[in-house]
Amino acid sequence: MSPVLELTHDLIRRRSVTPEDAGCLPLIAERLAVLGFHIEHLRFGDVDNLWATHGSVGPVLAFLGHTDVVPAGPESAWASPPFEPDEREGLLYGRGAADMKGSVAAMVVALERFVSAHPDHPGTAGLLLTSDEEGVALHGVREVVDHFAKTGQRIDACVVGEPSAKAKLGDLIRVGRRGSLSGTLTVRGIQGHVAYPEKAKNPIHVLAPALAALVAECWDEGNADFPPTSFQVSNINAGTGANNVIPGDLVALINFRFSTASTAEALRERTETILCAHGVDFSIDWHLSGHPFLATPGGRLREVVVGVCRDLCGIDPEQSTGGGTSDGRFIAPMGAEVIELGPVNATIHKVDECVSVADLERLPDLYEAICERMLR
Amino acid sequence: MSPVLELTHDLIRRRSVTPEDAGCLPLIAERLAVLGFHIEHLRFGDVDNLWATHGSVGPVLAFLGHTDVVPAGPESAWASPPFEPDEREGLLYGRGAADMKGSVAAMVVALERFVSAHPDHPGTAGLLLTSDEEGVALHGVREVVDHFAKTGQRIDACVVGEPSAKAKLGDLIRVGRRGSLSGTLTVRGIQGHVAYPEKAKNPIHVLAPALAALVAECWDEGNADFPPTSFQVSNINAGTGANNVIPGDLVALINFRFSTASTAEALRERTETILCAHGVDFSIDWHLSGHPFLATPGGRLREVVVGVCRDLCGIDPEQSTGGGTSDGRFIAPMGAEVIELGPVNATIHKVDECVSVADLERLPDLYEAICERMLR
Repeated sequence: MSPVLELTHDLIRRRSVTPEDAGCLPLIAERLAVLGFHIEHLRFGDVDNLWATHGSVGPVLAFLGHTDVVPAGPESAWASPPFEPDEREGLLYGRGAADMKGSVAAMVVALERFVSAHPDHPGTAGLLLTSDEEGVALHGVREVVDHFAKTGQRIDACVVGEPSAKAKLGDLIRVGRRGSLSGTLTVRGIQGHVAYPEKAKNPIHVLAPALAALVAECWDEGNADFPPTSFQVSNINAGTGANNVIPGDLVALINFRFSTASTAEALRERTETILCAHGVDFSIDWHLSGHPFLATPGGRLREVVVGVCRDLCGIDPEQSTGGGTSDGRFIAPMGAEVIELGPVNATIHKVDECVSVADLERLPDLYEAICERMLR
Repeated sequence: MSPVLELTHDLIRRRSVTPEDAGCLPLIAERLAVLGFHIEHLRFGDVDNLWATHGSVGPVLAFLGHTDVVPAGPESAWASPPFEPDEREGLLYGRGAADMKGSVAAMVVALERFVSAHPDHPGTAGLLLTSDEEGVALHGVREVVDHFAKTGQRIDACVVGEPSAKAKLGDLIRVGRRGSLSGTLTVRGIQGHVAYPEKAKNPIHVLAPALAALVAECWDEGNADFPPTSFQVSNINAGTGANNVIPGDLVALINFRFSTASTAEALRERTETILCAHGVDFSIDWHLSGHPFLATPGGRLREVVVGVCRDLCGIDPEQSTGGGTSDGRFIAPMGAEVIELGPVNATIHKVDECVSVADLERLPDLYEAICERMLR
């Protein structure tokens, strides 16, 4: 069994359901320490994080990953037990196989090979791992970055191992992510009896035309790198359950996935302006999960990763900013160039999650080649 | 203590929280039987109903009331115990004092006086009481009327004792009620991740413009007797609770309070047409609680009740069709003229429900005068 496959098996066996690490990080730390990596265990709250570095000068190339996985759900629904790696017809099955214990194993193996071959490489090769990516993500990379701000640690280029490919390894890389802005909208009305609407103020009725306007709004056209900003109401709730009572208030959860063509501030302001224009008595509790970020076209890491996909996979990768967000949102504001490259994401978070064994065995080559091209 | 006050006290002491009768009906039946009333105890399901009649030919004048009351809520919130009648400053306090044990007592006393004075009156004087008006109202007057259809019992004129007055006895009578049409609207979408709206179909977004159109719709202008039809969305619910999931469906409860200027059929059709026009994939489970009804202007009972208010209270009563509906909705479709006349309704269903003792003591005079003018 190849080293990357062996390590992936080992990691899958550990039930590291977020935010549990289940011993994944110490195992990796021990392997890298042997090769001279400087190891920092960063525990924040109930979360383990690992920062392993080889080298002490800039530029800093960091690989970023997580050892926690989403719950398996009913294990009986799986064809093979989710925490028992099982290979069938070229696929390795297990919770985290694709998201992202396979990538983590590939990063470790790539770094081992690179520093063994080039013990005196310029710059710094780093590995940043957390066990709080799939959960609330408060004590993971978010807090590590706060810590780095205090210690002066910088990252210049960052490769995130999130499963990015559509059909085969190298066919798609993420060169950025949209921002995510959430809001809890409360509309205030006046409760009353449906038979006396003139004595009440129905928040559902007051909101209706404003909601239609928000839904119809074109927030931006997107740009060369991003699709247009998307607005979604994910939840709406009003009513006492009784059909003869006009409710006193309404609560809706809204979410923007926004491009660099808009700012969070502008979206907040435009939302509130539309609500005000419709005479809605409201308040919104806003939460910004992440600003949009983008690896500038022509940037060094972006060129290197595209080149590696071309040279090693024979594919000109699609350079996408689609999908949700990733821990890259915490790294990008440090001024780092962030690119995501990982295996096919078709089965992530699902029953019978799996990764192609062939892709998994090629992934260390890609990561190693990135080290070679960035730190030589 | 006057007979009406004494009987009201006695009824309030009985904890007849819907659908319990707590002995109210047998008490009344016994009193009326003594005077030669024919007594029918109509028990349907867990509900007691009473139909007491004096006379056996038409026309039939029926008084309609209920002995059940809404729950008292926390009894400690009351200034005096809700099931202990208490008189303070000209007001009689207790659950049901106004809604509508006072009216029921007044009806009984009025009928006693009338048949004692006119044992050989023409037509029939009847009293129909139920203990299921405040609850689901399935086994109350609704089922009594079904029973009457089988036995051939008719009612020509009906006085409902619901508390109708605004500030003083006789200032307002109900000459009809709006219809009530409810619907459970289910909008079907496609669940998905908020980061991939193109793969989902948000039922909140699909409904928004249709909802705005429904809320803005003028259903009718009302007419001389009715205010315009009112449309209210009482409940709206969609969402998984998570802010990153587009919900798969949405459920809303809607309600029309409609005038005789519209029909239930037309309202259903117009609602569905608006939803269809906006491309909403929906279903609606409709429930018609009651058609609108109206005592025709110039009708005999309406003229009599207006005349009684003028002559005995010195007030030209407002002839209203406002408010919720009443058990009159079951009687009117029999072809009966239905008028509601009762005490001030300011405190009904509230803590410290009360009725003016002076109004209560005059109410039997009004009901007796109606008997005199209708059955002489």
